[in-house]
Amino acid sequence: MNACYFDGKTLQLKEVPKPARKDGEALIRILYSGICNTDLEILRGYLGFRGIPGHEFVGIVEEADSECWHGKRVVGEINCGCGRCSFCRQGMQRHCPEREVLGIVGKNGSHAEYITLPEENLHEVPEPICNEDAVFVEPLAAALEIAEQVHLQPGMRAVVLGDGKLGQLIARVFQLYGADLTVIGKHPQKIRCLTALGIRAQAGTEGIQDADLVVECTGNPEGLALAERLLKPRGTLVLKSTYSGEFLFNPAQWVIREYTVVGSRCGPFEPAIRLLESGKITVRDLIFRIFPSERAGEAFSVAQEKDVLKVLIQWT
Amino acid sequence: MNACYFDGKTLQLKEVPKPARKDGEALIRILYSGICNTDLEILRGYLGFRGIPGHEFVGIVEEADSECWHGKRVVGEINCGCGRCSFCRQGMQRHCPEREVLGIVGKNGSHAEYITLPEENLHEVPEPICNEDAVFVEPLAAALEIAEQVHLQPGMRAVVLGDGKLGQLIARVFQLYGADLTVIGKHPQKIRCLTALGIRAQAGTEGIQDADLVVECTGNPEGLALAERLLKPRGTLVLKSTYSGEFLFNPAQWVIREYTVVGSRCGPFEPAIRLLESGKITVRDLIFRIFPSERAGEAFSVAQEKDVLKVLIQWT
Repeated sequence: MNACYFDGKTLQLKEVPKPARKDGEALIRILYSGICNTDLEILRGYLGFRGIPGHEFVGIVEEADSECWHGKRVVGEINCGCGRCSFCRQGMQRHCPEREVLGIVGKNGSHAEYITLPEENLHEVPEPICNEDAVFVEPLAAALEIAEQVHLQPGMRAVVLGDGKLGQLIARVFQLYGADLTVIGKHPQKIRCLTALGIRAQAGTEGIQDADLVVECTGNPEGLALAERLLKPRGTLVLKSTYSGEFLFNPAQWVIREYTVVGSRCGPFEPAIRLLESGKITVRDLIFRIFPSERAGEAFSVAQEKDVLKVLIQWT
Repeated sequence: MNACYFDGKTLQLKEVPKPARKDGEALIRILYSGICNTDLEILRGYLGFRGIPGHEFVGIVEEADSECWHGKRVVGEINCGCGRCSFCRQGMQRHCPEREVLGIVGKNGSHAEYITLPEENLHEVPEPICNEDAVFVEPLAAALEIAEQVHLQPGMRAVVLGDGKLGQLIARVFQLYGADLTVIGKHPQKIRCLTALGIRAQAGTEGIQDADLVVECTGNPEGLALAERLLKPRGTLVLKSTYSGEFLFNPAQWVIREYTVVGSRCGPFEPAIRLLESGKITVRDLIFRIFPSERAGEAFSVAQEKDVLKVLIQWT
């Protein structure tokens, strides 16, 4: 099959063996894959991953132990737990210490014609959700993880730092909750995407202080310092970014102002599917371009440009 | 009056003017003051404080607007809010941006024969609590702040990093909640104080992993790195230490493992008083030595030695 393979230096579209399905796994033919910032981080060395990146996809089940999955259009949770440890037994497969993570840790990912995933990771995509939108289930679930962790209250003064792909989805979630929301961004086109939806978005911090909740998803440590400045005492800071490398820091103000800081990663798929199905959250405007798989290399180049939101690759 | 005065370089016992009571304030004659690590930090330059340090005390009200306070034995909350801002109006005087903090920010403290404090900051000390124990109300309240912020569950695997004065009090609080508690310390005498109460305390991290809750009160950034290693995914890290200076850091694991990090400072006085009054928490064993005020300089020297817990100064 064709796949985007990263050898530690460069990403190349090339012919690789079709993955072999293990017991309990489904073989999925990929329709579309989405390029996430984590994929771009991987190309810069994140977690030392070698192989096929990609964890946002929609596809068709071609083989599975359970007949009910055959031919179904699916998205899939990306963490594959061992199924035996105390975390898996508590339903916390996402935190299994032995887990593989699709296209991120120890398991080839979805920038390919085929992947395998445990059947228990699959979610059928309801008919009203088109293929292009279905690719957003995974990142939308990551945005919804914040609402799983933090009590989002309607009156909250919330600030999202970062107007990128994840910031865009988080802003859409917060808008649903009635929050008094401001997104602080850098890119005119991305800011326009938000204002078009009636979301307040601006380039600077003017008029913002004593926020109840700040979400840091800029991807750089300056965002952390800015969050600290904008948050009110006893406010909540959600960390969605991972940064590469260490930086100088002192959490004294976190103690003095009694901040709660919440690390947030992958989230629940079912509500993401419901919100896309009902149209309560729309994502079409976030697609910058769709490339056919033969031009996957170009897709990755474009995804790294400024002012570019989601780039998809069409595999079949 | 006599007071310990810090001029930015040295701390000296000297004659200074007795403080003038403002409207709404009480004039309090200090019986005992306690030396806290924050006092020692102040002598090293923390927050640039100049004047009389000290915020742990018990004293007698000599003057006040309300007659009911006259002659009462009291302890006092150390944050003096402006009374007008949105934080004060929400009962969050401890986080008033204009606040003065006794012996820490803009207000002379309790290592002196007299202080002034707003009447609303005062709490009468019930008869069963002796003077020496009453000095612990303030730091015990700071330990109880954790229970205000985090749901302490009886089955929790809790780790307290640091066997110092604050760690000792936090351990006593956690013991009340039935937590599966381990204190990690460095000082044989301090560890013995804990084991004598039936609290597991040890010098290393042997046998500890996947803690539900870790409290960092070592006062140094290595404690933060250790906390990160001991905590389970989705665990809670309470920061009680403030560190001087910046250090190299990357919160990536906080995001990946979805930690909740809670900064924690001053706490509620009333439950601290109740716990001392009922004897549910004992503190007498934490007193290392009591110095008469003429030897206050020596008291500060001793308080900085290793393996020394609380040092008190007796003023009258």
